[in-house]
Amino acid sequence: MVNWPTSRRPRPEAPRLRPRVAPTELSRIDFTEFTPEPVAFLGQAAYVQLEIFENLARAVSTAPELGAKEGLSATAGVALRRHHELIAELRRLGAEPAKVMAPFAPALDRFRQATSGADWYELLLGIHITSGMLDDYFVRLAEGLPHELRGRIRAILGGPRSSEVIEQELVRAVEADHTLDDRLALWGRSLVGDTLLIARSAIRSGSGGHAADVEPVFTELIAEHTRRMDALGLTA
Amino acid sequence: MVNWPTSRRPRPEAPRLRPRVAPTELSRIDFTEFTPEPVAFLGQAAYVQLEIFENLARAVSTAPELGAKEGLSATAGVALRRHHELIAELRRLGAEPAKVMAPFAPALDRFRQATSGADWYELLLGIHITSGMLDDYFVRLAEGLPHELRGRIRAILGGPRSSEVIEQELVRAVEADHTLDDRLALWGRSLVGDTLLIARSAIRSGSGGHAADVEPVFTELIAEHTRRMDALGLTA
Repeated sequence: MVNWPTSRRPRPEAPRLRPRVAPTELSRIDFTEFTPEPVAFLGQAAYVQLEIFENLARAVSTAPELGAKEGLSATAGVALRRHHELIAELRRLGAEPAKVMAPFAPALDRFRQATSGADWYELLLGIHITSGMLDDYFVRLAEGLPHELRGRIRAILGGPRSSEVIEQELVRAVEADHTLDDRLALWGRSLVGDTLLIARSAIRSGSGGHAADVEPVFTELIAEHTRRMDALGLTA
Repeated sequence: MVNWPTSRRPRPEAPRLRPRVAPTELSRIDFTEFTPEPVAFLGQAAYVQLEIFENLARAVSTAPELGAKEGLSATAGVALRRHHELIAELRRLGAEPAKVMAPFAPALDRFRQATSGADWYELLLGIHITSGMLDDYFVRLAEGLPHELRGRIRAILGGPRSSEVIEQELVRAVEADHTLDDRLALWGRSLVGDTLLIARSAIRSGSGGHAADVEPVFTELIAEHTRRMDALGLTA
């Protein structure tokens, strides 16, 4: 694990998205109110991994240098394995994966296109930010699932992030081209809204709880996003 | 394993590419004359698997139906695993994979573009035909490698073909659209020349043997190609 400096050169102070609650408050949220039933949860989580895979495969194809392909394709392999493991969970519940995923496809296809950026670096940042937020989110949301399934979801979506290669490429690019950090900072900020919309759409509809009750989870996602941007030397 | 009918409806006789030697003659070829040294062999074989992966990932992204994505993405995972296993063999020999693969990239990138077709079905047939021929070929060519390495290459590139999903999609498409078989037959025939050129370029340059001596291998590749097209109900 490489520890990136949180900031590599002085930059003017800029407004940042800050967590509005301390992380400890999160443990009080009862996810059973918000987590969809297992089949819907798995269908959406599986399709999210497929979208991440597709964007990573595109990053492999369009990589400007051969050296980046190896690490990116390994990361693509992780997303692909997660997708297939979630699919296997769906089959275990007797569900037909393609049918279960279909309702999520239009919104997630649009999301993928909206977050794939104008060039290779924006594509990489899009993958890094959206997969970082959504992997975290689905692991949190899984807390409302039956105990055994929750453990397996954590095993599938948790584990090593394998995004080091993306971090390395982005840090190297920002260092080499000093016009890139402003553009990427802006792009990173614009990704948050779209990603939170996807996260919100994953909350069980017609749940007894109020949307405001789950707000601390989004606050935590934003705080993690800020840490992720900091690690790249970008203003969140 | 599904056994496809070799021909599902009568069609006019057409000239076919036929093997000119019996397969038994092949065992007489001494591959040590033609097989490149291990590092070059592995570099080219690894890059071929990366190209197959990239085309498969594109087939996943552009699949007209969600149902096809699962099988195709699993097949993409096989190509990706092969790529990484060949990369691991390169590292085992102390070689830097990106450096070793670089000389093969321009020709293989052009090859991938030339064989990726005008639509999703041509893309699928391109993957099926070129990966079928080249996987066979590299396994044969590996006969000239040192004994232990040869066994590992066979383990990596041999094994289940995992192209059933592609066969199924193509057979279904040809049955649903009776204008497709002529177009795909023509496309399949045009893939052979490009693929044989890649195969020829993999022969060790300046080898003591004559190119004509390795001709039976190409004849065998063409015979396998004919069987593959037959299995799809297409004229080779």
